[in-house]
Amino acid sequence: MKKHNFYAGPSILPDVVIEETAKALHNFAGTGISLASISHRSKEFDKVMIDAQDLFKELLNVPEGYSVLFLGGGASLQFAMVPFNLMNKKAVYTNTGTWASNAIKEAKLFGEVVEIKAKDYFSLPKGFDVPSDADYFHFTSNNTIFGTQYKQDFDLNMPVVADMSSDIFSRRIDVSKYDIIYGGAQKNLAPSGVAFVLIKNDILGKVDRKIPTMLNYQTHINKGSMFNTPPVVPIFAAYQTMLWIKANGGVAGMEKIVAEKAELLYNEIDRNSLFVGTVAKEDRSSMNICFVMKEEYKEFEAEFASYASERGMLGIKGHRSVGGFRASTYNALPLESVKALVSCMQDFENLKK
Amino acid sequence: MKKHNFYAGPSILPDVVIEETAKALHNFAGTGISLASISHRSKEFDKVMIDAQDLFKELLNVPEGYSVLFLGGGASLQFAMVPFNLMNKKAVYTNTGTWASNAIKEAKLFGEVVEIKAKDYFSLPKGFDVPSDADYFHFTSNNTIFGTQYKQDFDLNMPVVADMSSDIFSRRIDVSKYDIIYGGAQKNLAPSGVAFVLIKNDILGKVDRKIPTMLNYQTHINKGSMFNTPPVVPIFAAYQTMLWIKANGGVAGMEKIVAEKAELLYNEIDRNSLFVGTVAKEDRSSMNICFVMKEEYKEFEAEFASYASERGMLGIKGHRSVGGFRASTYNALPLESVKALVSCMQDFENLKK
Repeated sequence: MKKHNFYAGPSILPDVVIEETAKALHNFAGTGISLASISHRSKEFDKVMIDAQDLFKELLNVPEGYSVLFLGGGASLQFAMVPFNLMNKKAVYTNTGTWASNAIKEAKLFGEVVEIKAKDYFSLPKGFDVPSDADYFHFTSNNTIFGTQYKQDFDLNMPVVADMSSDIFSRRIDVSKYDIIYGGAQKNLAPSGVAFVLIKNDILGKVDRKIPTMLNYQTHINKGSMFNTPPVVPIFAAYQTMLWIKANGGVAGMEKIVAEKAELLYNEIDRNSLFVGTVAKEDRSSMNICFVMKEEYKEFEAEFASYASERGMLGIKGHRSVGGFRASTYNALPLESVKALVSCMQDFENLKK
Repeated sequence: MKKHNFYAGPSILPDVVIEETAKALHNFAGTGISLASISHRSKEFDKVMIDAQDLFKELLNVPEGYSVLFLGGGASLQFAMVPFNLMNKKAVYTNTGTWASNAIKEAKLFGEVVEIKAKDYFSLPKGFDVPSDADYFHFTSNNTIFGTQYKQDFDLNMPVVADMSSDIFSRRIDVSKYDIIYGGAQKNLAPSGVAFVLIKNDILGKVDRKIPTMLNYQTHINKGSMFNTPPVVPIFAAYQTMLWIKANGGVAGMEKIVAEKAELLYNEIDRNSLFVGTVAKEDRSSMNICFVMKEEYKEFEAEFASYASERGMLGIKGHRSVGGFRASTYNALPLESVKALVSCMQDFENLKK
């Protein structure tokens, strides 16, 4: 049976990325040895690192003055690294979900955090004022668990930091409006084990505290992201994914198909008499699509979960803090998988009518 | 031509580990989806994590009361995490090489470091006194760059922390004498991107400072090393390597073959009229074997490098801080590769006679 991979992360990657990574495990770049067993200082891997950094910049149309880093520790380590490197006294954070809230927890170890929050996590705070004396503004562009997404850039007179773990490369952004964009790569880019950091070179050096070497962005900028042994296999796979994005219309191409998939599924959620979306319509994510059974059909929830699972739908159980269902529709998820889920919802509705 | 992989890290892994990892990239544990694309919360990966932790303990004969963690960021991040979690005022570090010295640099951010050092990095300090009021004692068991190795455990009345990046699972140790054993996995265990940490559960909670969540060992102990998304592919590969170790006589089996390989190569270094070892004989590493051309034959160094390279020897150039040659003879390096290098040295000697 064909499996449809709706996991929220680690999540689906393009078939060609899996193929190329498996091939490189056997024989990397014609060296005769495995990608897993080659020195990161070899000229062959050095080329992968540089090409990956360059392509990252190319795909996002990055202006001069930024560096691309591929680091271990995931986005969760970035939650601490950002304030370690940038916070003197005060920072502004939108609190839009579980991950934003985790980022805030770390920032509070370093100074005052002004939190901006909507009434709940099913809609996004908008039109708020940002205190002008803050060191930086931090937001999570896409909230993987609750399924909300900011689809426009913030334009502020202070450093802007964004966690784009779950929507990087899914929509065009104006990088010049950002000072740091970071994220765990395991949703839209690579197997788990690497975080990407796009950082404006001139924003560092403004705090007094002593920063451990590995947590200091300057360390990694100075060494071209090779201060210590980087996660070689995940970085190779990330590069393959970026090549796939480029070959498929770049970020604009992704944006188009991502919108098509999201529209298809949201339309079904809105049409189907059994289901209802959980998020304010204007804030709906194109990456993580959350829905539940309508109140009067709650009893069918477990049954639908089994029904969908028997038809090859993987990972559509909603996060425990939201319940219901969540379909993650990352770049690499084929349109046919969304169509299969839509059919599954329609068939289940017919079954219950 | 057969390649002989003497890289110092990332380095050679058993063929079966590469095979199993590549297979899992296509279809992991019969799920029909890739190891790179499956949720770390899936029951299939959860089993890998638990089995890997259990096997780690089994192979090292770990007593009750320890946890095994698989974390991102490499050993370099552990250099900061150790003092972050353990240092109140003072710690004792052996300074036995580049990595030990990097660890010391981080510890100094948190308190006083008493450094114990031999006259140079080509021999190890031994028979020294450790101030009894220190919070812990830290040493690097094997020095990858200079090729020295402590082959016995320290028995001290204070917490003992060891960086075993480059000799874990190569010799039997008495874990009860250690409080933390950590290392980057990319030398003897897995592709790069994961660090292992074996930690005694009751040594934490003795410092007052605020520790960022990701840098707090307690976070990872509490969550069974799944606080955030772990590096799934490297952990899977590490587990496969441990299965291979178990199938090949366990750590005692590794110790035997490691000793055999080291003896073979050191004997040739000592016999061959062109070469000389760089390290005090009693401190020679079984993992990283360093040698240079004798003073009178220095002119042949570049020629031997090419000669060896043409015969399939990879990664035998010495680290830039030592020069000459370094052959890393990790667990997975076949005996035949050492024999091939020895032949190469003998043939080169004959050529020059």
